[in-house]
Amino acid sequence: MKPVCLVIGAGAGIGGTVGKRFAQEGYHSVLCRRTDENGLNRLVADIERDGGSASGFLLNAVKPDTLEEQVAAVEADIGPIEVVVFNLGAQVGNRSLKETTYKTFEMGWRMATFGLFRVASAVCPLMEERGSGTILVTSATAAMRGNKGQHSHAAAMGGRRMLCQSLNAEFGPKGIHVAHILIDGSVDAPDTLGKMLGPERFKELRETRGMEHDGLIMPAKVAETYFHIAQQHRSAWTHELDLRAFTDLPWWNH
Amino acid sequence: MKPVCLVIGAGAGIGGTVGKRFAQEGYHSVLCRRTDENGLNRLVADIERDGGSASGFLLNAVKPDTLEEQVAAVEADIGPIEVVVFNLGAQVGNRSLKETTYKTFEMGWRMATFGLFRVASAVCPLMEERGSGTILVTSATAAMRGNKGQHSHAAAMGGRRMLCQSLNAEFGPKGIHVAHILIDGSVDAPDTLGKMLGPERFKELRETRGMEHDGLIMPAKVAETYFHIAQQHRSAWTHELDLRAFTDLPWWNH
Amino acid sequence: MKPVCLVIGAGAGIGGTVGKRFAQEGYHSVLCRRTDENGLNRLVADIERDGGSASGFLLNAVKPDTLEEQVAAVEADIGPIEVVVFNLGAQVGNRSLKETTYKTFEMGWRMATFGLFRVASAVCPLMEERGSGTILVTSATAAMRGNKGQHSHAAAMGGRRMLCQSLNAEFGPKGIHVAHILIDGSVDAPDTLGKMLGPERFKELRETRGMEHDGLIMPAKVAETYFHIAQQHRSAWTHELDLRAFTDLPWWNH
Amino acid sequence: MKPVCLVIGAGAGIGGTVGKRFAQEGYHSVLCRRTDENGLNRLVADIERDGGSASGFLLNAVKPDTLEEQVAAVEADIGPIEVVVFNLGAQVGNRSLKETTYKTFEMGWRMATFGLFRVASAVCPLMEERGSGTILVTSATAAMRGNKGQHSHAAAMGGRRMLCQSLNAEFGPKGIHVAHILIDGSVDAPDTLGKMLGPERFKELRETRGMEHDGLIMPAKVAETYFHIAQQHRSAWTHELDLRAFTDLPWWNH
Repeated sequence: MKPVCLVIGAGAGIGGTVGKRFAQEGYHSVLCRRTDENGLNRLVADIERDGGSASGFLLNAVKPDTLEEQVAAVEADIGPIEVVVFNLGAQVGNRSLKETTYKTFEMGWRMATFGLFRVASAVCPLMEERGSGTILVTSATAAMRGNKGQHSHAAAMGGRRMLCQSLNAEFGPKGIHVAHILIDGSVDAPDTLGKMLGPERFKELRETRGMEHDGLIMPAKVAETYFHIAQQHRSAWTHELDLRAFTDLPWWNH
Repeated sequence: MKPVCLVIGAGAGIGGTVGKRFAQEGYHSVLCRRTDENGLNRLVADIERDGGSASGFLLNAVKPDTLEEQVAAVEADIGPIEVVVFNLGAQVGNRSLKETTYKTFEMGWRMATFGLFRVASAVCPLMEERGSGTILVTSATAAMRGNKGQHSHAAAMGGRRMLCQSLNAEFGPKGIHVAHILIDGSVDAPDTLGKMLGPERFKELRETRGMEHDGLIMPAKVAETYFHIAQQHRSAWTHELDLRAFTDLPWWNH
Repeated sequence: MKPVCLVIGAGAGIGGTVGKRFAQEGYHSVLCRRTDENGLNRLVADIERDGGSASGFLLNAVKPDTLEEQVAAVEADIGPIEVVVFNLGAQVGNRSLKETTYKTFEMGWRMATFGLFRVASAVCPLMEERGSGTILVTSATAAMRGNKGQHSHAAAMGGRRMLCQSLNAEFGPKGIHVAHILIDGSVDAPDTLGKMLGPERFKELRETRGMEHDGLIMPAKVAETYFHIAQQHRSAWTHELDLRAFTDLPWWNH
Repeated sequence: MKPVCLVIGAGAGIGGTVGKRFAQEGYHSVLCRRTDENGLNRLVADIERDGGSASGFLLNAVKPDTLEEQVAAVEADIGPIEVVVFNLGAQVGNRSLKETTYKTFEMGWRMATFGLFRVASAVCPLMEERGSGTILVTSATAAMRGNKGQHSHAAAMGGRRMLCQSLNAEFGPKGIHVAHILIDGSVDAPDTLGKMLGPERFKELRETRGMEHDGLIMPAKVAETYFHIAQQHRSAWTHELDLRAFTDLPWWNH
């Protein structure tokens, strides 16, 4: 039976591409996303065409029980989850405090912080019993510092980073590898950056900074590092690392 | 008219003592806490006996509209809020992931993260219009790193720290001083440490580490620094600082 | 006998002004700087005119034995050093790696890192014997992150920050308060910023950002916080804090 | 012609093992260390027996011109240096301030900080001209915080971390990948840990925590991650990551 890689937030950026990468290496990838059934089916079909195996599910991560039931269903129907890729973001663009509604602020937390807590609550006991498992959490610059306009995003990601550390503190010694992967720059992803910028500006950005310029983070390259982290031997685990395009200013410089 | 210092979380530890300190310096302190009306009344009476002025309110910070209405009522009935001391904690002791319920996790966020967001949403527009104001946020080690058993607390405080930074980024240049004050050690406070340890162990700890040993953080000494931060000239503001007893190991050492 | 405050790096900016502030509060300030005997004498005369007491010494901090002999002479001739303000900087402006000579790089370390180690080696045993003392270290943004062109400065200040932590770890519990004070912005100081910019640009900057705009850090305001830190009770010590003008972007934002 | 991997500090721990790993992947590894010519020859012979290619040099990194001449000689005689592994440590065990001589403190800086500056000064212009290159810097917990007894080590490593950031800031956009790799725990290495503990205690530690317990960091596993970092595509580079055994407490917890 193939080991299972469960991706929460499997859009056409980091999530889907990481799922594809694990499938190439012999995992069965379970791809979960909120919308775009067609995109999801295409992703599964792509993986299968390349000889891999995958399943796709639509799932609303802020609704009660969805994440928990998904974990249970995968364990019952597909197999033990060896790797979780938690890839839900909560970026809503820059908004002043006045423009940040209570609902937006709470939604950021529900997606990015509470969502991870729920998945971890469901999956950690199973991994603990098996004595192994990996939880790879996609993070953002906002986990490291709160920039102007990032009230909701920074609060959600900052909470999530600390949660990754407390999960690591409890479950690392039990054989569960928790990694907090800081994506510190713009990702060449139609589902997130593309939607935020609109098709024209996204096309222009790709032509001037992305593509052969390598100035946008390429999901396929990120996926190499996710896979590497998941394969690290337990005598040499990474908990936190950053990833950015070579031309990008790290978050600590200005 | 006296300037107003609004304390959210005014127990018999840092919150109440800081309120007392500002009252000594000519502020009218508005003390808000969830329970213990007698304690609250005693605190107000203490302040008045020393020639200061204060008001006390019971307030449940996780209920809708309570914080917002409190801010509005103070502005309408007492005077413009010059200083907010946000002193709500969310420490529930060490609990494994299994022992940390969804309710506990959410309550941590509602108190420590969303609570600050709500207060800031209510008070920042007023301070912005006046071109000045100060928000002092009591923080804890869990804002800096997630220790074992601290899932709820660390996620809440880590989110809060990033929120303090994004508030500072938006409102600093508008004259509002936001400070994140890291209490990195045990505080000699009956309402928090005392309740967590129980009366006997608290008494013993005070006798062996606290009192003349100065190994427990004394609220009255903390209050000196809160007051200093609130008086800093806007050409030299502190956003973050730590406070600990001289015998305590800083969070970064072990 | 007055307590002694020894200032290493007492130019017409933070160092001299902090010395003046401590003298106002009853300390005898010992002001040491490398050059400008006239400026030094003026500073001492200023302090004395205000009713304070001070001494001035020219001292080359990178030469062997100078710092050690100064500490010994002050202890022998003036009195026990209660507070050290270590204010030597090593900013040489932005220089590419190619433009940063070995000599520059080493000089940065000799001034900013080794200088503090030497002073601490001389003064800590004395303070330890007395069971108390304070070492206030002026630091810079470069201690927190290495920006482009800051090879020498960042390496020196980053090393110094870690040294402050190891000094605190050893000597905090022995009653010696070590504080690392991050000056995160431009200081309105003729001896440093003024010299770096030249008189015209400095004048212009003061008129557009400084003075009543409060956008340059004012040494006199910084001195208030240095003095506060030195007076903190040992049950509530600060080890690290930042200071910046309200309009300045903190180092973590961009 | 094979690409060259130059290892500064190639003992029988991380340095030598990383050199071996790169040789397995088709690099010519140039192994430099201060002493133990026999060990060095054995390492080269090992690599050659496995079909790889390597050269060994004895080199005193604190003497003038040694590092610079080594870089020049490799470029002239062997080939362009594609990867530098800077693996010089400066750990001298825990020593109080009193026990830390000026010579020790300076030696730490000469090895760990100035050594990297010298190598970077020699190799960056060459890499810049070629538009690519990788500098992997082995770091230690002391780069992140100064523990008791770590005055020399922490000051040296803290300075080095900032230098890595300023090198990255200048040379990242020019195609040179600088990575700061935090080894946050004990490494199963006879040349460093073994010498510090002595043969008996080292043997005991290996039997109780190392070997099949995976509680000591294994150099061969670390080498996998070094190699991965060096192969990252420039659209997704890591600047900083940590490595520790799964049972080890991260530096931020206690």
